[in-house]
Amino acid sequence: MLKLLVIGIGAGNPEHMTVQAIKALNRADIVLLPRKGSAKEDLAELRREICRRFLETKKTRIVEFDLPRRDGGDAYLKTVDDWHAAIAATYRDLLARELPDGGTAAFLVWGDPSLYDSTLRILDRLRTTHSVAFEPEVIPGITSVQALAASHAMPLNTIGNPVLTTTGRKLRDAPPDAADTIVVMLDGDMSFRHVAQDDYAIYWGAYLGLEQEMIVAGDLAEKASEIEAKRTAAREENGWIMDVYVLKRKGGKGLNG
Amino acid sequence: MLKLLVIGIGAGNPEHMTVQAIKALNRADIVLLPRKGSAKEDLAELRREICRRFLETKKTRIVEFDLPRRDGGDAYLKTVDDWHAAIAATYRDLLARELPDGGTAAFLVWGDPSLYDSTLRILDRLRTTHSVAFEPEVIPGITSVQALAASHAMPLNTIGNPVLTTTGRKLRDAPPDAADTIVVMLDGDMSFRHVAQDDYAIYWGAYLGLEQEMIVAGDLAEKASEIEAKRTAAREENGWIMDVYVLKRKGGKGLNG
Ligand SMILES: C[S@@+](CC[C@H](N)C(=O)[O-])C[C@H]1O[C@@H](n2cnc3c(N)ncnc32)[C@H](O)[C@@H]1O
Ligand SMILES: C[S@@+](CC[C@H](N)C(=O)[O-])C[C@H]1O[C@@H](n2cnc3c(N)ncnc32)[C@H](O)[C@@H]1O
Repeated sequence: MLKLLVIGIGAGNPEHMTVQAIKALNRADIVLLPRKGSAKEDLAELRREICRRFLETKKTRIVEFDLPRRDGGDAYLKTVDDWHAAIAATYRDLLARELPDGGTAAFLVWGDPSLYDSTLRILDRLRTTHSVAFEPEVIPGITSVQALAASHAMPLNTIGNPVLTTTGRKLRDAPPDAADTIVVMLDGDMSFRHVAQDDYAIYWGAYLGLEQEMIVAGDLAEKASEIEAKRTAAREENGWIMDVYVLKRKGGKGLNG
Repeated sequence: MLKLLVIGIGAGNPEHMTVQAIKALNRADIVLLPRKGSAKEDLAELRREICRRFLETKKTRIVEFDLPRRDGGDAYLKTVDDWHAAIAATYRDLLARELPDGGTAAFLVWGDPSLYDSTLRILDRLRTTHSVAFEPEVIPGITSVQALAASHAMPLNTIGNPVLTTTGRKLRDAPPDAADTIVVMLDGDMSFRHVAQDDYAIYWGAYLGLEQEMIVAGDLAEKASEIEAKRTAAREENGWIMDVYVLKRKGGKGLNG
């Protein structure tokens, strides 16, 4: 029997690891660690650090592997669907090679596995496309959204009211009255520049939980250019950036003024 | 100097505790534990268990106290605002009595402190209403939403799309096109009965992380009455219930059909 553990490792601080996640890690026969491209070397390193620090058994093998890359030479990986298919095939081969007689494999997922992460969807393909039978077990993890709220020592929702979580790309499509609190992830483009500047306060954070962590909070109209400057400089210095922010409506107005 | 630690303890399973939360707990001079009314005795007990299991120092004192009750004899606590004011006054008195010369106090918050929890807002009143100076530090915790997604081994969002998190009371106000995934918390009334039954799948969970945990998933039209029956029976048996669910849109239709 094949057991696949999908373990949320938190959003940057190794101490986001839960007791449940540490125990799950130590149940694995193998831990699959993707080697990422150079820009994301810091992130691959965090996963290695988590193994060094929390693995207490010698029986667990760490298996590093290359993820198919979307932006690399693999020009045929045109759609997300193609890309996921390629990753599923990689997993199938790895599992067949490393655990030919079954056993337990762990996947370490950034933040929580339920939030803007494809691991669970890709594992589904093992079953549907490749007829690999397995039992999944998911261990929840601290998301970057919780890390952001903690660093700002703030609640997300206003009392009894909804919260919309969306992406930079989808921010402009959000119905103006969907929520007075909007969480924006996966924003490579500083989409906060396109909402009504006077109507929102922004709570921004980058590299949360990592030593480069930076946060900025205040009226959007006042802080947008400070965030832009910080983001651009930090991205250049580190070679990569991950940031997330919350927009809180100040008056009674909607998303686009 | 007074330091106030607001520690997310996860949503029911003591092993949701993070390494960061365990360390924070052990930095506290006092831990403030509310004695809850009898219905919530299980929840007060979980906080005690967390202290027993994870406190490694003898220097930390556990201070149990009675929270002002909204529904009890205190008829003057008519609004949420009055109630929060009464809790803030209780905190002020406790801190003055237990830490007259300053020190570090910990509040253990269910799930994550940013999500439908008032602790941070109430502590703000210490500063604004009672002129108590303090330094806050928030430690993120696993939310019931992550616990729900993990138990169903499912992603929350569909690829690249938004998620709306709302309450039972506010579910009906959600704009139909806000999101194809809706998380509903704080629903005492099974509000899923009021959305278009044929358009959604439901992923429901109660007592997540606790020994009574139960989950149900499937088409809303098929599962609504099963959930109703289970919820009513479990609530009667345990004297209380906490449940949370996700509605996933099946076709292209909106919230109300
Ligand atoms: C592919 S999603 C993964 C989210 C992850 N599963 C979670 O639970 O946070 C990546 C996005 O998460 C956010 N993110 C993740 N880690 C972050 C961090 N340490 N600091 C700031 N943002 C982060 C950014 O918005 C980034 O674009
Ligand atoms: C006052 S809110 C607190 C939420 C908490 N801060 C969190 O992060 O999950 C209480 C609501 O959370 C949900 N909830 C919390 N713990 C739960 C559990 N163990 N099982 C099911 N639902 C839970 C229910 O919807 C409940 O009405």
